[in-house]
Amino acid sequence: MSDNRPTMIDTDVHNSMTGKQDLLPYLPKAYHQAWLAYGAGYGGSYLGTGAHSVTRRDARPDGGGPPASDPNYVIRHHLAPYGIDYAILTGSGILGISLVSDPDYGNVIARAYNDWLADTWLKASPRYKGSILINHSDPQAAVQEIERMGPHPDMVQVIMCSGSRNLFGQRMFHPIYEAAERHGLPVAIHPGTEGRGNAGPPTPSGHPTRYFEWHNIIPINYMSHVNSLVCEGVFEKFPELKFVAIEGGFAWLPHLMWRMDKNYKGLRDQVPWLKCKPSEYIRGHILLTTQPIEEPDDPAHLGQILDMIGGDHMIMYSSDYPHWDFDNPKVALRSIRRELRQRIFADNAIQLYGLSEKPGEGASV
Amino acid sequence: MSDNRPTMIDTDVHNSMTGKQDLLPYLPKAYHQAWLAYGAGYGGSYLGTGAHSVTRRDARPDGGGPPASDPNYVIRHHLAPYGIDYAILTGSGILGISLVSDPDYGNVIARAYNDWLADTWLKASPRYKGSILINHSDPQAAVQEIERMGPHPDMVQVIMCSGSRNLFGQRMFHPIYEAAERHGLPVAIHPGTEGRGNAGPPTPSGHPTRYFEWHNIIPINYMSHVNSLVCEGVFEKFPELKFVAIEGGFAWLPHLMWRMDKNYKGLRDQVPWLKCKPSEYIRGHILLTTQPIEEPDDPAHLGQILDMIGGDHMIMYSSDYPHWDFDNPKVALRSIRRELRQRIFADNAIQLYGLSEKPGEGASV
Repeated sequence: MSDNRPTMIDTDVHNSMTGKQDLLPYLPKAYHQAWLAYGAGYGGSYLGTGAHSVTRRDARPDGGGPPASDPNYVIRHHLAPYGIDYAILTGSGILGISLVSDPDYGNVIARAYNDWLADTWLKASPRYKGSILINHSDPQAAVQEIERMGPHPDMVQVIMCSGSRNLFGQRMFHPIYEAAERHGLPVAIHPGTEGRGNAGPPTPSGHPTRYFEWHNIIPINYMSHVNSLVCEGVFEKFPELKFVAIEGGFAWLPHLMWRMDKNYKGLRDQVPWLKCKPSEYIRGHILLTTQPIEEPDDPAHLGQILDMIGGDHMIMYSSDYPHWDFDNPKVALRSIRRELRQRIFADNAIQLYGLSEKPGEGASV
Repeated sequence: MSDNRPTMIDTDVHNSMTGKQDLLPYLPKAYHQAWLAYGAGYGGSYLGTGAHSVTRRDARPDGGGPPASDPNYVIRHHLAPYGIDYAILTGSGILGISLVSDPDYGNVIARAYNDWLADTWLKASPRYKGSILINHSDPQAAVQEIERMGPHPDMVQVIMCSGSRNLFGQRMFHPIYEAAERHGLPVAIHPGTEGRGNAGPPTPSGHPTRYFEWHNIIPINYMSHVNSLVCEGVFEKFPELKFVAIEGGFAWLPHLMWRMDKNYKGLRDQVPWLKCKPSEYIRGHILLTTQPIEEPDDPAHLGQILDMIGGDHMIMYSSDYPHWDFDNPKVALRSIRRELRQRIFADNAIQLYGLSEKPGEGASV
């Protein structure tokens, strides 16, 4: 193996603007007032995180500004100390633009954000790789945005919020997958918008009461989307498509795989387009990031769960920097067998995002 | 241990009426027409089960009528052949009355059903134990029904559908728990009404497309309710309350427990009424029934999941007779260690429902 191969890739780093004004040069003037007044406009969360903030205070740049708003500070504070070669950028406070009622607004914000990202962070260091933000509520506009930004050499995936009024296997979303597959880009979802904007309640029985309860239950939306993608035959229709489930955990996968496979035996006449067991589509097409990693009292249980999932290529390390529930790469996954650790910390992201060489010149601060 | 101790208890048997006319003697005349026209009235499911029916054809009584509509035939066809001492009856096609818009209708149907159940099945054999059906959308009426039927010696729990517009930890439901705890009755939920009647969509991202996809994802509603019950402090407020999650699987529990416990470390200032880790409330108060049991390719994985759950007293065998996805007690759980199997097949239900002796005279057909 080449000495120049990356040893750690962080697949979920939340780059932030320094303020709303950052987007104005990229936004049509007609939208300036709305952007400055409402921002991404998809509404509040469940009364915050309690005693502490969503973002780590120590992630504020020494030169001022919000946490993770300075590319150079993020290298000094996060990437360099942990030996992280690449950070996959996932944005901050803007992912939910798919949940604004006005699709034109969502579309222009996504477009402006992508231009800003390319002009700032992606130029600041080759360590940064971008995610093309789309508005999934307007799939045709999302396709146009993938066409526009897909050729950018530092954009490595498409990203959209997991909050949605419709399950992602459904046909309205297929043009997005067709475009992503054609550009060789994975489609990633990120949580945190469940029950916000014009998404429905975040559980089948309405709204949780507090942030704690809401945060506990977010992965059920991931289970719903993964189930939908498989059942609707998305991976038969788009056999090269990879789907990345960021920040949703993974210990729920064995249960879902087993239940889907069991039901498939009795009910597969309803999904005649499936050619193998549901769990095989999951293993072949779904990747998941580690943070917030499940932490059983007995660390051996985590290894057992990974064995049940049975796909060593499916999990990728993420820190969720600069959020409060950050997973330190020196602590996470210590009990996992060495070869799987290496896959999780580097190899799986190397393969998915095509990052087989360490970043070149300009990578240091 | 006494020779007279039950060796197998089936905690989910769907007794059926022979037809709608069965309920008329118990229903106020003003509701006869509506009942005959609309039945339980909570709407259809996701285009059925495909090629086969929801109920097993061989469960139709030899004397005619719908599957599981003849108490004596159910003994001959199901209980006797497998050596099942007791069947906990959970009803059929009527559980969702909480999801009819008109609460008066839901209340009278629940009341009539309970009277019919007591007059027929519970008199047919001491092997049958009943669940008091309530309309959870009208908690005060539900409390009255628990008061009315709670003293019946063969009613062993309260049952309500898991489909709901609100999460079961929320305060509107607390009078139900207070009444159930006072009568020493567990509160059980049963799935199958997710997304039906006036419940919200069965996922955070809308409706699944087909029955297969819908059935795969039902347990997310269970996860949501368990999370809500714990976070809202229901088990601090009602320390003797037991909550039974019927037919929702259990392999999702380790994930939920770990996620709740991890978040509790950072966010417990939001739930100051909790005095121990969320997983401890789950182990102390939640019981789950086995069917549809998860069936991993490697049977050892099921034992690992049970070890992760860590509560040998939490799981109870159920067959779901006469439904299509029935779990045969001779096949299910074969790989599980002997002592735990005995707890699952008998001891846990003996303890929960107070059934320490085999049924007495009249138990044979």
